[in-house]
Amino acid sequence: MSSKENLKAAFTGESMANRTYLAFAKKADAEGYNQIAKLFRAAAAAETVHAHNHLQRMGGIGTTMDNLKEAINGETYEFETMYPEFIEEAKKEGDNRALWSFEVANKVEKIHARLYEKALEEIGKNEEVDYYVCSVCGHTHEGEPEGNCPICGAPPSKYNKID
Amino acid sequence: MSSKENLKAAFTGESMANRTYLAFAKKADAEGYNQIAKLFRAAAAAETVHAHNHLQRMGGIGTTMDNLKEAINGETYEFETMYPEFIEEAKKEGDNRALWSFEVANKVEKIHARLYEKALEEIGKNEEVDYYVCSVCGHTHEGEPEGNCPICGAPPSKYNKID
Ligand SMILES: [Fe+2]
Ligand SMILES: [Fe+2]
Ligand SMILES: [Fe+2]
Ligand SMILES: [Fe+2]
Ligand SMILES: [Fe+2]
Ligand SMILES: [Fe+2]
Repeated sequence: MSSKENLKAAFTGESMANRTYLAFAKKADAEGYNQIAKLFRAAAAAETVHAHNHLQRMGGIGTTMDNLKEAINGETYEFETMYPEFIEEAKKEGDNRALWSFEVANKVEKIHARLYEKALEEIGKNEEVDYYVCSVCGHTHEGEPEGNCPICGAPPSKYNKID
Repeated sequence: MSSKENLKAAFTGESMANRTYLAFAKKADAEGYNQIAKLFRAAAAAETVHAHNHLQRMGGIGTTMDNLKEAINGETYEFETMYPEFIEEAKKEGDNRALWSFEVANKVEKIHARLYEKALEEIGKNEEVDYYVCSVCGHTHEGEPEGNCPICGAPPSKYNKID
């Protein structure tokens, strides 16, 4: 493989390692291994540096206008192609736990695509608004949520405000 | 593909989307699009929820003892196989920017493997220590760093303490 392809493969590996270590840190905290949790978070932070170094060198970061278009393409692929296929297969297998995970993500990606499209249309004069993210399903809401999550039914206390 | 494989593919996609959106958020802030930066951070937080939902459902989170072994295996693959191959190719191509990114990561993964091995040996009686991560190369240091980063040469001000 060329170095360009290798940068992409390394970016993928570093991205997955970061997410995995964060999940392992939560588990270690839950099991009372707070020092090991801290180590997992430290390594996760290091993998962020590696992932972003590789991404930058593979030309993966453009102008914000380019980046919004790229994000819209990625979200659209997920809710038009990837998740519908995964949902169909999970239904066929009767795998309800996988099905739930795919279905909520699929709904949220549609919302992401819309929010990114709006941001692109209004670029330079974007309205100031806070976002709240449901910690159960990832639902991304403009402004303070008033009721339960419309996607997973979680109560408002499950939302986190994004700074 | 089976739902088990689909969960893994979706975990990969969500992990990469999260890392990419965080990089896009930094770029948007640098370009003065603070509202768009906030949207990228919100979507990144949502992709974290999706990645962890998928990871949990694919059985990717074990006990902390299992998780440490898994982390050691991943780091060892990276510094014994993946990065050495990528480094060789980057040298052949004379791609010095990719080479730097691979070389510093490779050195840091060796350190991660050692830290995880120590944590596993001492599990249940781990010494309390703070970790500091170099924001340039990801070097992961036990205790407060006293001089420049031994891997990339960055000054101590480039280290972030991990909480
Ligand atoms: Fe890494
Ligand atoms: Fe999304
Ligand atoms: Fe939700
Ligand atoms: Fe997602
Ligand atoms: Fe590592
Ligand atoms: Fe460094």
